[in-house]
Amino acid sequence: MTTPECCGTLTSDTLSAPDAAELARTLKALADPARLRLISLVASHDGAEACVCDLVEPLGLSQPTVSHHLKVLVDAGLLTRDKRGVWAYYALVPGALEAVAGALASPVADPR
Amino acid sequence: MTTPECCGTLTSDTLSAPDAAELARTLKALADPARLRLISLVASHDGAEACVCDLVEPLGLSQPTVSHHLKVLVDAGLLTRDKRGVWAYYALVPGALEAVAGALASPVADPR
Repeated sequence: MTTPECCGTLTSDTLSAPDAAELARTLKALADPARLRLISLVASHDGAEACVCDLVEPLGLSQPTVSHHLKVLVDAGLLTRDKRGVWAYYALVPGALEAVAGALASPVADPR
Repeated sequence: MTTPECCGTLTSDTLSAPDAAELARTLKALADPARLRLISLVASHDGAEACVCDLVEPLGLSQPTVSHHLKVLVDAGLLTRDKRGVWAYYALVPGALEAVAGALASPVADPR
């Protein structure tokens, strides 16, 4: 996806219809508990990359279901997919989640 | 909603199933072009508050459709609704979008 935050956040500028459609598409890809957990599992895996074979058991879903969710995240530009041997390996697209977060709201200081 | 960013971002900690379900519900409310544009229109309105009567024409949708989308955003904890006289007035819930953004990614410095 292009980076919606290039043109300000949702609340700093009036969102155009095409920008709204694009941001909505990306949010829809994220708006699923299994897909959010997959992103979290991939990010926390050694080297921030995980084989589909590592993701099935922690999620408690079938491999075809996990593969479907991973495809939605790849198609949305949130994960990369690299086939090596018999397995596909998934990693976060650098900056993709930050771009979505930045399109929703301005960064705020971390209170911790 | 409670603030998912209390416990770190999607990628800094492994997301629990209940946290994933809650964040997914909020993202689903946001994952619609009309609702994103409504948030943007409310935020850019005088006093960051808008009457439903101000939102129908810029969106080009019927008033019942706009009212439905506004209800979804209120139910998700993103907008407040205040009935005054014949009209309902909508405003952003302070910090709500920032909480969603913070749950997705750590704040990054604004490059502009």
